[in-house]
Amino acid sequence: MAAAAILPELATQVLIPVAAAVGIAFAVLQWVLVSKVRLTPERRADGGAAKAGPADYLIEEEEGLNDHNVVVRCAEIQSAISEGATSFLFTEYKYVGLFMGIFAILIFLFLGSVEGFSTRSQPCHYSKDKTCKPALANAIFSTIAFVLGAVTSLVSGFLGMKIATYANARTTLEARKGVGKAFITAFRSGAVMGFLLAASGLLVLYIAINLFGIYYGDDWEGLFEAITGYGLGGSSMALFGRVGGGIYTKAADVGADLVGKVERNIPEDDPRNPAVIADNVGDNVGDIAGMGSDLFGSYAESSCAALVVASISSFGINHEFTPMVYPLLVSSVGIVACLIITLFATDFFEIKAVNEIEPALKKQLIISTVVMTIGIALISWLGLPYTFTIFNFGVQKTVHSWQLFLCVAVGLWAGLIIGFVTEYYTSNAYSPVQDVADSCRTGAATNVIFGLALGYKSVIIPIFAIAFSIFLSFSLAAMYGVAVAALGMLSTIATGLAIDAYGPISDNAGGIAEMAGMSHRIRERTDALDAAGNTTAAIGKGFAIGSAALVSLALFGAFVSRAAISTVDVLTPKVFIGLIVGAMLPYWFSAMTMKSVGSAALKMVEEVRRQFNTIPGLMEGTTKPDYATCVKISTDASIKEMIPPGALVMLTPLIVGILFGVETLSGVLAGALVSGVQIAISASNTGGAWDNAKKYIEAGASEHARTLGPKGSDPHKAAVIGDTIGDPLKDTSGPSLNILIKLMAVESLVFAPFFATHGGILFRWL
Amino acid sequence: MAAAAILPELATQVLIPVAAAVGIAFAVLQWVLVSKVRLTPERRADGGAAKAGPADYLIEEEEGLNDHNVVVRCAEIQSAISEGATSFLFTEYKYVGLFMGIFAILIFLFLGSVEGFSTRSQPCHYSKDKTCKPALANAIFSTIAFVLGAVTSLVSGFLGMKIATYANARTTLEARKGVGKAFITAFRSGAVMGFLLAASGLLVLYIAINLFGIYYGDDWEGLFEAITGYGLGGSSMALFGRVGGGIYTKAADVGADLVGKVERNIPEDDPRNPAVIADNVGDNVGDIAGMGSDLFGSYAESSCAALVVASISSFGINHEFTPMVYPLLVSSVGIVACLIITLFATDFFEIKAVNEIEPALKKQLIISTVVMTIGIALISWLGLPYTFTIFNFGVQKTVHSWQLFLCVAVGLWAGLIIGFVTEYYTSNAYSPVQDVADSCRTGAATNVIFGLALGYKSVIIPIFAIAFSIFLSFSLAAMYGVAVAALGMLSTIATGLAIDAYGPISDNAGGIAEMAGMSHRIRERTDALDAAGNTTAAIGKGFAIGSAALVSLALFGAFVSRAAISTVDVLTPKVFIGLIVGAMLPYWFSAMTMKSVGSAALKMVEEVRRQFNTIPGLMEGTTKPDYATCVKISTDASIKEMIPPGALVMLTPLIVGILFGVETLSGVLAGALVSGVQIAISASNTGGAWDNAKKYIEAGASEHARTLGPKGSDPHKAAVIGDTIGDPLKDTSGPSLNILIKLMAVESLVFAPFFATHGGILFRWL
Repeated sequence: MAAAAILPELATQVLIPVAAAVGIAFAVLQWVLVSKVRLTPERRADGGAAKAGPADYLIEEEEGLNDHNVVVRCAEIQSAISEGATSFLFTEYKYVGLFMGIFAILIFLFLGSVEGFSTRSQPCHYSKDKTCKPALANAIFSTIAFVLGAVTSLVSGFLGMKIATYANARTTLEARKGVGKAFITAFRSGAVMGFLLAASGLLVLYIAINLFGIYYGDDWEGLFEAITGYGLGGSSMALFGRVGGGIYTKAADVGADLVGKVERNIPEDDPRNPAVIADNVGDNVGDIAGMGSDLFGSYAESSCAALVVASISSFGINHEFTPMVYPLLVSSVGIVACLIITLFATDFFEIKAVNEIEPALKKQLIISTVVMTIGIALISWLGLPYTFTIFNFGVQKTVHSWQLFLCVAVGLWAGLIIGFVTEYYTSNAYSPVQDVADSCRTGAATNVIFGLALGYKSVIIPIFAIAFSIFLSFSLAAMYGVAVAALGMLSTIATGLAIDAYGPISDNAGGIAEMAGMSHRIRERTDALDAAGNTTAAIGKGFAIGSAALVSLALFGAFVSRAAISTVDVLTPKVFIGLIVGAMLPYWFSAMTMKSVGSAALKMVEEVRRQFNTIPGLMEGTTKPDYATCVKISTDASIKEMIPPGALVMLTPLIVGILFGVETLSGVLAGALVSGVQIAISASNTGGAWDNAKKYIEAGASEHARTLGPKGSDPHKAAVIGDTIGDPLKDTSGPSLNILIKLMAVESLVFAPFFATHGGILFRWL
Repeated sequence: MAAAAILPELATQVLIPVAAAVGIAFAVLQWVLVSKVRLTPERRADGGAAKAGPADYLIEEEEGLNDHNVVVRCAEIQSAISEGATSFLFTEYKYVGLFMGIFAILIFLFLGSVEGFSTRSQPCHYSKDKTCKPALANAIFSTIAFVLGAVTSLVSGFLGMKIATYANARTTLEARKGVGKAFITAFRSGAVMGFLLAASGLLVLYIAINLFGIYYGDDWEGLFEAITGYGLGGSSMALFGRVGGGIYTKAADVGADLVGKVERNIPEDDPRNPAVIADNVGDNVGDIAGMGSDLFGSYAESSCAALVVASISSFGINHEFTPMVYPLLVSSVGIVACLIITLFATDFFEIKAVNEIEPALKKQLIISTVVMTIGIALISWLGLPYTFTIFNFGVQKTVHSWQLFLCVAVGLWAGLIIGFVTEYYTSNAYSPVQDVADSCRTGAATNVIFGLALGYKSVIIPIFAIAFSIFLSFSLAAMYGVAVAALGMLSTIATGLAIDAYGPISDNAGGIAEMAGMSHRIRERTDALDAAGNTTAAIGKGFAIGSAALVSLALFGAFVSRAAISTVDVLTPKVFIGLIVGAMLPYWFSAMTMKSVGSAALKMVEEVRRQFNTIPGLMEGTTKPDYATCVKISTDASIKEMIPPGALVMLTPLIVGILFGVETLSGVLAGALVSGVQIAISASNTGGAWDNAKKYIEAGASEHARTLGPKGSDPHKAAVIGDTIGDPLKDTSGPSLNILIKLMAVESLVFAPFFATHGGILFRWL
């Protein structure tokens, strides 16, 4: 065909695992640095903790550094949170493991039945003149890939949670030494998670391709079709992680706030509140473990989508290994680039004041994007032949390497734009959140109206950015272009996750400060970290949603190709009903998850009220509340309530595909995609804005903010109500929706051979 | 071709205007009956008002019947409301008139330019062998039809408002004699509006077809293409009516509630509240005039969509007049059927107790649907040949008359299902609203979370009903089937509007009772009427949304045919970006309208607070507030704020069509349709549920309700917040969204000849 890539296969085979290894090593290094913050008071017994450290630790004033009790208490609280989170995740994994086991069997049976479990080789699907491995092999390897993806996702989430619960108290203790130290501890811990996840996702995928390749040999079509199971496994796990964790965290958060802040007028995270441990556990299992699984799923899926399209393009047909694994090369470059950039945040710059946090994080994002653009240009030049062809719904389309570079770059930059828009709409440094805060003057109702309007409005620019990326990448390189655009958006995933995980860690740090009875100055610092964390969490969600939109379109395209549909014409009844029902699914799903949070929160409220009313001395702080019962309520509720929405998402493609066939399923996927992405963005941003409007009033950093405050004023109470409503929107239903749209698409792709053979029985029967 | 219809052309030419005339006569009769309730105390001076009437007026106890002052006060308040509403509508029409004038010129210029303003006849678009009238004629007649549609819509809305403001105080006075009397007065007044609107819409359309026909002669293709301007005119007017009226009413309502109910703890509609007149004016200009224009628009558009498709089917090609105007025949039958059914509500049954209201209205809906099914069967048998062909994207599809009957019937019954589901989710007789009320126990936040979840959940069954109707009618008779399904849903529009208008009239009646200082027993009765009215308003909105979905799909199909697009393939970049941006538009639009309500409400709150703080004796009731300033705030805000969302909807199809072309525009229409319908349904139902949850607590009709109440309790306060948030959702942004999706579709259809010739300059230039 055309000239080969500059990078030889051997170099590629070395480069990818090395990049992954470097990423893991860097994560370990960051972890070691975090672990240097001692949680045991022993060593510091000789003359105050900080004095034992290097002199430059003392950036701002010292406060409570000599108080050993504080350290002991922080350690106690941390271990309570860590235990709660670990125990919840084990329970969750037990149930989800059962579900996944059943689903794995389904995958095997459905895909195996395509050729009646025959062990005979068959003509390839796309290149009819070649011979491919039997459908049974596809069934077996898809199932293995599914399990691999699920396990990697599980490990990612679990490790993320472990690191976060390791770092939270350390961040609190560092906050005594100044906001800069606390920031670095939280950020480093986030980086541990980000790099570990990005690197292990890459490594497992790389190993799986090579191992599966031993069996598949020259049958790359079959090989990469089986590999898509990896994406399905990752996303299925992520779904339950997000939904279960989301319900857990918000049931506890809403329940704690409703009684504590609203009724009893005690501060957030007050140790007297029985739900406070559950709340902090929730941050770790929902925002950390859930988010980790989610972004890992996106990463796995976009890689799989790109690989499966590449396998039927000239790369796959001609067995050009280096361009074939171009998606993995992009991720490898991403890890290295993010590594360099992280050093900026942690080692080259230093944050000295509260108002430097958000600009610092923003700088991180910009630098990442710029460095990555260069990296992508380089790897596109090295890793791709100048001219190649890409499969485009039945025909091969000629593409140049610089066009593919544009596809990746447009995704990357669209991510940055989405990040900035999200920041604008959720940070209390700008007018949208300040307007929402101002509307609290007239009560909770106007706060909610303004907040909802803000969320709706915040959808506009991200959608234009996504639409532009899709148009450009789709026009240049068909579905492969869209898939690599998604990869581009996710190429800075290590930094993105670091920034993102930083939020809940800071939130926890604040909680621990409050519970340990540390001074209000410490709390002010952790609050500032947390406010920035709300914004970065929203930015992270923006990336997750934007990439989910691109990924699911790419998967959708791959599904349509595999299912041998030539057009998805809206103006056929089969497709249109799919479209409108698909657009309804995000609402159904959100109804379930929000109701679950609401019901679980009601139970939590009753329990918290019961404890306040029946345990003598609780309000006075002389007796300890019964934290365990609240943890149990959250655990039980989330385990029970995550099943129906999970089943809705997992079963819809199966039911639609089997009963109505691939055309209707195409409609469902398109409908869910275009409708879900809007709700997801608006829900995340509305919630983030409410949270920060509340923080804006609490912080009272401006003349305007002070007219609304202080804590406990009527506008502040109204802001708390908004914040509480936003909780399930931004942390349960909103972020779960990306998984909904991605998962349905990847599931359809995995089951496409089955649907194409046995699907649509209802219409066939009519 | 096939056998002709049984009904000869002459009979059809007689039947349609006669049905319209009967409808108008019936409306006048109902008006006369309403006017028998005297608003002047003179005649009753001899021994008490009720005693002067017939003896059977005294169903329940008499209360305050002798109080002449009450009657005088009611009359005063009514005239204040009527004046406010009239003056607002005149202001609104002045601005909208200007906009519509400019738009009419645009239509003329754009459509005229298709063939360069040539006066030469041209080959027909669909039947190339025939000769059609010049594009210039199409431009002229489309413009005329547009103006006709706009004027009819304007008159419909205005008359509706006049009747409502005529009936509200009469309903109040009748409430003294029992809930049954009040119900009949309110319902009769609703019927005046319903029949007037259905009949005049039909009549004007009928006359326009006949008058335009004089010029067009045998060129039915051109004739009915020009007639679509009627739908565009109706819907454009409706857009501004809905948005302007919606902002007006909710700014006043939210503003009045926030200060009155929440801060000052005075009852709703208390005459001391300066915003109370504006609030009541708002009900009439928003819910009555706006809703009237909206449903008229739906009716006009579905007729136009059906006619334009029929004109290029065998009816139009063979010039078979009776089947050609089958859509008008369906509407004619609808008027007659609804007339019979209305007699049941007003003359055959009598409502004696509060809890009979909702079942009575529900019975109305069921009987209407059953009677109409028979009527449709009859008219399909009489008005259609047994076999005919329908234009289906380039080919002619053979259809039987019974299949078309099924299309109309499925729309009709889907409407009933949507109505029932809406009732289930918004009536406080069922568990969903009771659960929402119960969640107020833990405050406003859980109330909002549960309410939002309820709205999301209420989308599921209506969407399945719409999807099923679309699938069936689309499969049987292509886009013509979808259009007549929409007509089927709207065939009971007279009853639907009567039920719907009944709501705001009762709401006003309650307001007048409160302002006139009538006893709490009267207020209880009007409250019960009003609670049922909230449900019926939600049902009406359900119909409006369901029919809007069907209508816009039919218009969309007609547009695609006219623009000569063969497929709308989601998997082309042009279409997909349209789809995702289209799905975003309802969010953009909602953000604008909700923000407008919020901002206007803030201004209102400040003014109301100012008056309470500065006018001495206001709280004590010794001084009258300055109602006029509040009316002015609402007026100014709504006039100013209705322009941007209006422009968004009106300009989007033009900009997309001109810059990106018809494929992208198709995507936008499909995306807006499938996304908008979900938000519209959920917004309406969430709002309705919150309103009735509040009423449920206030009424305290059950053991459960009493544990939450009484008025002023914490759960009640939480419920008031939910109600306030729901106001803009259910009365501003939600119902405006149906117009958004319909209007963009009909506008695209009208401009299709222009887009097909001159559109897509951006892609052409690339």
